[in-house]
Amino acid sequence: MSAPPALHEVLAAVLGIRDGRLRVLLWQRALDPDAGRWALPGGTLGPEEDVESSVRRQLAEKVDVREVAHVEQLSVFSDPARSPGKRRIATAFLGLVPSDADPALPEDTAWHEVDDLPPTAFDHAAIVGSARDRLRAKLSYTNLGFALAPAEFTISALRELYVAALGHAVSATNLQRVLTRRDLLVPTGETAAPGRAGGRPAALFRFTDRSLRVTDAFAVLRPPARPGGPRDGVLP
Amino acid sequence: MSAPPALHEVLAAVLGIRDGRLRVLLWQRALDPDAGRWALPGGTLGPEEDVESSVRRQLAEKVDVREVAHVEQLSVFSDPARSPGKRRIATAFLGLVPSDADPALPEDTAWHEVDDLPPTAFDHAAIVGSARDRLRAKLSYTNLGFALAPAEFTISALRELYVAALGHAVSATNLQRVLTRRDLLVPTGETAAPGRAGGRPAALFRFTDRSLRVTDAFAVLRPPARPGGPRDGVLP
Repeated sequence: MSAPPALHEVLAAVLGIRDGRLRVLLWQRALDPDAGRWALPGGTLGPEEDVESSVRRQLAEKVDVREVAHVEQLSVFSDPARSPGKRRIATAFLGLVPSDADPALPEDTAWHEVDDLPPTAFDHAAIVGSARDRLRAKLSYTNLGFALAPAEFTISALRELYVAALGHAVSATNLQRVLTRRDLLVPTGETAAPGRAGGRPAALFRFTDRSLRVTDAFAVLRPPARPGGPRDGVLP
Repeated sequence: MSAPPALHEVLAAVLGIRDGRLRVLLWQRALDPDAGRWALPGGTLGPEEDVESSVRRQLAEKVDVREVAHVEQLSVFSDPARSPGKRRIATAFLGLVPSDADPALPEDTAWHEVDDLPPTAFDHAAIVGSARDRLRAKLSYTNLGFALAPAEFTISALRELYVAALGHAVSATNLQRVLTRRDLLVPTGETAAPGRAGGRPAALFRFTDRSLRVTDAFAVLRPPARPGGPRDGVLP
């Protein structure tokens, strides 16, 4: 069973918290197929690039990629019926933008609520769902919150980001306790300017690391420490 | 920058513990390119199939797929120079076979030690390394040991599997403690037949689940329990 050559494309589901909601960056297609529908940034893999360099190149056409705090491969979408015409196989990526980054967007591009998408092109709604599920899963066993949060934040502000990303209530007290106990968060020693309601100024925190690690890998399964070796819990 | 169509292939790094070592299933290429070198099972994506059905079809030519306890996508390997001739883009998978499964293998196929590979074809050694790293990472925050272990085992036998997979020493006492505390392991109530050395018969255990879940997702980040909803910690 030999296959006719297929086009390979890369697609990026870039998520971030905007106005208290988890949103995804989509652009509105001007041309058929699926004219008027909203699509993920991306396009065909170039002859000289691999999928990682391709997704960064293509994202740069829609958003300032310096604002993207984390990018990882999601998975391959390869249903033969996923788009009309010549077969296209897509490598999908998850990208995350901190809530205080405000990248300039082209006219055709906007942030849309992940749980209330406009009409989407092809299988892009399924890719957005896969990105949302990956984010939610990793928030629960890694430090991935760093990629949604500003450099410094109050616990109350961080709680709002987790609530928006997870889609359910989270207690600020419990969030602070579990993230601190696992050495994800450290206090900066500073406090935020008091809000309009006055009251005690709130302590500011930052994430200990701003690259991905598993936050509670079983200690007994860690390799013996080696000078200069990879740190415990750093994802391969 | 428009790309000429490329071939899409799927490749499977099937790992298992054999004779106390972490090994991978490889077949020896009879024809050029890279004749005589050892390669991962796989091949070109068929016109009617997606990558998941393709990898299962192609694996079935090398090994009884009923013996494969877990399969997941690793990532896309897409360096333009990864193979000679027409461009090939590969979706690589990790597969795991329990230590007591003994699938019949074709003549050209054998288990090779992951940390002592024979000469390999193309970029397949890098794919094996990626599979080994994924396995090691997931053993430390999921129940993935179920896919390496027989249905029932003593703690001593399980420790040997973890040592082989992780490549470093693991204490049986600590392993039992952490896996039990996280509800990964349950005693079967039976004991193993005593070894030649005699001594007290050892208790038998099994994994609570034989599908993948994160074993210690932050409890505070779990959604409220819903009747009939997905269970806590189940990977999306």
